[in-house]
Amino acid sequence: MAEPLKHPLAPEERVGYALVGIGKLAEEEILPALEASKRSRLAALVTSDLEDGKRLARRYGLPPEAVYGYDDYDRLADNPGVHAVYIILPNHLHEDYTVRAARMGKHVLCEKPMANSVAEGERMIAACRAAGVKLMIAYRCQYEPHHWAVREMVQQGRLGAVKLVESVHCQVESDPGEWRLKRKEAGGGPLVDIGVYSLNTIRFVLGLEPVEVFAQTYATPDDPRFREVEEQMGWQMRFGNGVLAACLTGYSAFRSSRYRLYAEGGWVGLDPAFDYRGLRLSLGREEGGQQVVEERRFPAPNQFALELDHFARCIQEDLTPFTPGEEGLQDLRLVEALYASARTGRPVRLEAPDKPDAFRGERP
Amino acid sequence: MAEPLKHPLAPEERVGYALVGIGKLAEEEILPALEASKRSRLAALVTSDLEDGKRLARRYGLPPEAVYGYDDYDRLADNPGVHAVYIILPNHLHEDYTVRAARMGKHVLCEKPMANSVAEGERMIAACRAAGVKLMIAYRCQYEPHHWAVREMVQQGRLGAVKLVESVHCQVESDPGEWRLKRKEAGGGPLVDIGVYSLNTIRFVLGLEPVEVFAQTYATPDDPRFREVEEQMGWQMRFGNGVLAACLTGYSAFRSSRYRLYAEGGWVGLDPAFDYRGLRLSLGREEGGQQVVEERRFPAPNQFALELDHFARCIQEDLTPFTPGEEGLQDLRLVEALYASARTGRPVRLEAPDKPDAFRGERP
Amino acid sequence: MAEPLKHPLAPEERVGYALVGIGKLAEEEILPALEASKRSRLAALVTSDLEDGKRLARRYGLPPEAVYGYDDYDRLADNPGVHAVYIILPNHLHEDYTVRAARMGKHVLCEKPMANSVAEGERMIAACRAAGVKLMIAYRCQYEPHHWAVREMVQQGRLGAVKLVESVHCQVESDPGEWRLKRKEAGGGPLVDIGVYSLNTIRFVLGLEPVEVFAQTYATPDDPRFREVEEQMGWQMRFGNGVLAACLTGYSAFRSSRYRLYAEGGWVGLDPAFDYRGLRLSLGREEGGQQVVEERRFPAPNQFALELDHFARCIQEDLTPFTPGEEGLQDLRLVEALYASARTGRPVRLEAPDKPDAFRGERP
Amino acid sequence: MAEPLKHPLAPEERVGYALVGIGKLAEEEILPALEASKRSRLAALVTSDLEDGKRLARRYGLPPEAVYGYDDYDRLADNPGVHAVYIILPNHLHEDYTVRAARMGKHVLCEKPMANSVAEGERMIAACRAAGVKLMIAYRCQYEPHHWAVREMVQQGRLGAVKLVESVHCQVESDPGEWRLKRKEAGGGPLVDIGVYSLNTIRFVLGLEPVEVFAQTYATPDDPRFREVEEQMGWQMRFGNGVLAACLTGYSAFRSSRYRLYAEGGWVGLDPAFDYRGLRLSLGREEGGQQVVEERRFPAPNQFALELDHFARCIQEDLTPFTPGEEGLQDLRLVEALYASARTGRPVRLEAPDKPDAFRGERP
Repeated sequence: MAEPLKHPLAPEERVGYALVGIGKLAEEEILPALEASKRSRLAALVTSDLEDGKRLARRYGLPPEAVYGYDDYDRLADNPGVHAVYIILPNHLHEDYTVRAARMGKHVLCEKPMANSVAEGERMIAACRAAGVKLMIAYRCQYEPHHWAVREMVQQGRLGAVKLVESVHCQVESDPGEWRLKRKEAGGGPLVDIGVYSLNTIRFVLGLEPVEVFAQTYATPDDPRFREVEEQMGWQMRFGNGVLAACLTGYSAFRSSRYRLYAEGGWVGLDPAFDYRGLRLSLGREEGGQQVVEERRFPAPNQFALELDHFARCIQEDLTPFTPGEEGLQDLRLVEALYASARTGRPVRLEAPDKPDAFRGERP
Repeated sequence: MAEPLKHPLAPEERVGYALVGIGKLAEEEILPALEASKRSRLAALVTSDLEDGKRLARRYGLPPEAVYGYDDYDRLADNPGVHAVYIILPNHLHEDYTVRAARMGKHVLCEKPMANSVAEGERMIAACRAAGVKLMIAYRCQYEPHHWAVREMVQQGRLGAVKLVESVHCQVESDPGEWRLKRKEAGGGPLVDIGVYSLNTIRFVLGLEPVEVFAQTYATPDDPRFREVEEQMGWQMRFGNGVLAACLTGYSAFRSSRYRLYAEGGWVGLDPAFDYRGLRLSLGREEGGQQVVEERRFPAPNQFALELDHFARCIQEDLTPFTPGEEGLQDLRLVEALYASARTGRPVRLEAPDKPDAFRGERP
Repeated sequence: MAEPLKHPLAPEERVGYALVGIGKLAEEEILPALEASKRSRLAALVTSDLEDGKRLARRYGLPPEAVYGYDDYDRLADNPGVHAVYIILPNHLHEDYTVRAARMGKHVLCEKPMANSVAEGERMIAACRAAGVKLMIAYRCQYEPHHWAVREMVQQGRLGAVKLVESVHCQVESDPGEWRLKRKEAGGGPLVDIGVYSLNTIRFVLGLEPVEVFAQTYATPDDPRFREVEEQMGWQMRFGNGVLAACLTGYSAFRSSRYRLYAEGGWVGLDPAFDYRGLRLSLGREEGGQQVVEERRFPAPNQFALELDHFARCIQEDLTPFTPGEEGLQDLRLVEALYASARTGRPVRLEAPDKPDAFRGERP
Repeated sequence: MAEPLKHPLAPEERVGYALVGIGKLAEEEILPALEASKRSRLAALVTSDLEDGKRLARRYGLPPEAVYGYDDYDRLADNPGVHAVYIILPNHLHEDYTVRAARMGKHVLCEKPMANSVAEGERMIAACRAAGVKLMIAYRCQYEPHHWAVREMVQQGRLGAVKLVESVHCQVESDPGEWRLKRKEAGGGPLVDIGVYSLNTIRFVLGLEPVEVFAQTYATPDDPRFREVEEQMGWQMRFGNGVLAACLTGYSAFRSSRYRLYAEGGWVGLDPAFDYRGLRLSLGREEGGQQVVEERRFPAPNQFALELDHFARCIQEDLTPFTPGEEGLQDLRLVEALYASARTGRPVRLEAPDKPDAFRGERP
């Protein structure tokens, strides 16, 4: 990863973001991340509760007129301090809000999963391209130093060729009313919400795409949470070079997130891997006949700030983001293949591009 | 697990074992384990190199006449100090040496995998039953306190219901001439030799049997080691209660062995899990809003001695071993199903018994 | 610790700080901490390099007239947006800048060690008292949740009575010209700069004061770094209840910081303990005959922000800070006793107050 | 350390040991260690309970006539199968049983501490020298690979010069009737029994001797356990090269044993350090700007077997043991200095030999 800016830019030199959707993530993570960022600043809030939005705005030094209702979303076009929108809405709304932002000439940072179908994702890409605005999917892990350290170790072959990969991402969702459990809104269950981290990060670390996938799902009968979406999924992926990956995700197991790559000369991985903070990288190897297990500790800047600042730099310097819409679209293709496999009980074969990092842009 | 004997039995009160096959495992592990055991003693060696066998015998205080060539195997019948044979031969020889031991009226402890096919395994069980001798498969982990602690936590529901399981067992085999890489002798690749630990231990910890399995294999083209057997396999298992397990095994990745179970209220597992020594149990849970990750440290007796002594006790007290032939046979059924799945690219469904621990005997 | 504010206060409701001294700590830690704080904001900078100060001000949205030279320090009196000064200067300047701030009616947050002598510390306290302003010494660890968790475990006796304590804080100072290595400016060597963390934190965790101390120092002959101050010190402290503490500090050993308390029923401690981030709490205990070693993981907010916000709350609500001048003064008394012991080769006895937390104010 | 023998010697080629004193240590550790050893065998038992001794003998294949009462101790002279005695008696009996063994021409392995005074230790050395028998003090850690790995890292300067050392060894003694709590029998409290591990191991790892020591002790008033000996001690040692060591020991804190050395470029240590099994070596260093904390895992043979076999080799090859009487005597000198310091409240200065490893013999 490139060295970050040593000093923050002055407020007026930064990229102004409108946050679209003020839930827990926006309030607890994104607003503080904007304070910690170096190239980004809060420029507007879009929310269903104007009063609450104004209270929040006041706390972050934003004038009340920078708070918009959803009905007024298109009025962002007139706010020149807003250079980009950050869409933090339920998945089924991503397409509409992206397309409308593009029409306003605003760049779009969109939460993962990009959308609920490949078709939606393709329309988002097309709309942004047509409008000449940038589109980035918020794959936080691809902008974070622990994950980059794993990727570099792997791609430089420091542990020899990777052979096997495992990953788990699970957590307990206890409220049956949660939008994440509604097929129409979420587009799927734990796979699209949290399993996608395993999917995306393995692709990122290897720089490769799977050529065959297989999935099994399960939902406890009569559990009101899992009427529309799977409770859990186990899936496998085979890559062109023979690497086999085994992944698990679920909504009824204790919050855990990890991955590990097993190579000829050692293993390396993160646990926790996908949390907002506290990531840990460990590594197993041999030295002089002894087994060594080591942890490498990194300075750990705010992950959201890194992500926001990458997109800000891409806007300022006219670069393609490292995780553009195409990167998100590839995950959607895989998600569709995994659900198809689970439904049919058969593996699904996929075309893989013939070069590494086929869907990625400028290195962060 | 039951309390072990406080004191060793006097030599003449112990069960005498003939070791059949004197390779690295016998020499480095089983002979010292017999010294460390409390109910077992070395009674004979069966080897292809009589001179070497006699040198070894002398070091362990065994008279030279207790060393047998393979041609003389059936003469063990006349040695009343030999109560049991421990078969540590390549897999394709297990059936023959078991059947002949049974005919001699000797009890049989046989290394895993029990045999190269379900049919062989069934004949072994039948022969031992007919002869009225006991048959135990050497599933070391099922006699070891760390694994038992995991099993008890899981089965007592101390972390809530288990939902997901992952396991890896891999190592590097570098010699293309190794018998483990010959289909006829080994019966398969890493699955039957080391992957079977994941398979067997997950079944043991859950006390349940899978109802559906799926596998993918891979072998690097032109790698002389993997002409006859797979280089690596990824597989999934679904259990009747919905638990999904994801496993990886391979012969070209750094020596690693682990498993972890993800339950509603925490996770627990071993890493390393299947090594001869140095096992570590760790556990994640929540307490008062804090995440707690803990290691529980156990006295760790010689694993082979525990196993040898369990079988000795079964002989002395006329009990069915915890891992009798039937337990080994179930692994063979699953191995055949996994290879069938890999071959056909389709999941394989299996009948599961309707009670837990269906194939196991007396608790150790 | 009390729950922190859920939301930040609006900028105009916060306590305005003037940072006095713009070195590495101010730039890399305090400025970002002010952004992350909830009750505090940057109100002025006092620096020797006005140009640099203005560049920095611009980046943090501060007008250029809020940047002061040292000659203009007393002009802060006229800036009503400055409620408090945070003194981040070499130790020998603490008294003067504190006394002058008090005269201006500004509250004072002063870096540790409070001063270079008990006499200086007493004058600082007297000046603040006379002026009716608050004085707090910046003992970061006393406002941090890991340290509080240790303190609460200890003081609630959850591991039984504490018996023994150890602590280490060392780092490599390689520049002989560094002010920390000049007696006049620093007042001492590693003891006053980093060893004081061990000293202060042990006192904080136990809530008690030592009754006898002993110290040994060493400086490598001819090492240009250690002509004026010690290279390293080992010291012991005995508390009234018999607790023995053993501490080490030094300026030529690899950056390390830790402490551990050994109680009747277990141990607990931090490693790293005194770093700005990445603290880890671990704990040893017994459960059911097994040894358990556990790590407890906490959300870890910006430590400096917690400290700044505590003082801000004390100003807003007219409370005595948890670490007022008196707390800093007690460390100075102990520092003087330790140097006296090292000089004379004799232990030094001290009066201990007859109540716990004798020098502390409002709980954070 | 030298490579151990690949194969055990035949029983008749081994050194025969008489165990003198059959308590918990002998029964739980030394008897199994003799089974696991390669050059040593059990040749006789000396015990106060002949019946119990004979039962034990039978279990280990020893004839009943090889069991002796203390009154018959001198009859060991007539048993040619006994080459050496291993004295596992309360400390105040070490001298007498050593001197009498020497008179019988038997080599002596004696538990630590060697004796209750320097004078006793000197007489033991003199008696063995006069009789031409070897004397070794059972410093287990000096024959163990984790400790050797630390020593080699330190002495090869792989982390730069060592500057600071800390060590703790404590455990809970709850029975006031225990001989370890009687001054006449034990010669002191936790210092001589467990603290001596810290003392001895730091000397071993550095290969150096302290030039100044200081100690503080404490005993809870009215605690019946600590009427005769200290409850706990904190002590410091300064070595000629300026290394400062801080140590703690006690009989009322949770079983813990560790040490760590802080050098210019990293730290290294064991935790647990002095346990019979399960030792762990960890190491902190920097690499490419990252902090690395690593564990190095070793095969961990039976520690007592390593020690017994070293002495056996010294007997077989006529070598001075690595830890001869002189090594034990130096600890006694330091123990006396530490108690003198605690009594007088003054540091004690000591002469240090002018070469490293001044008191040690043949490397194991």
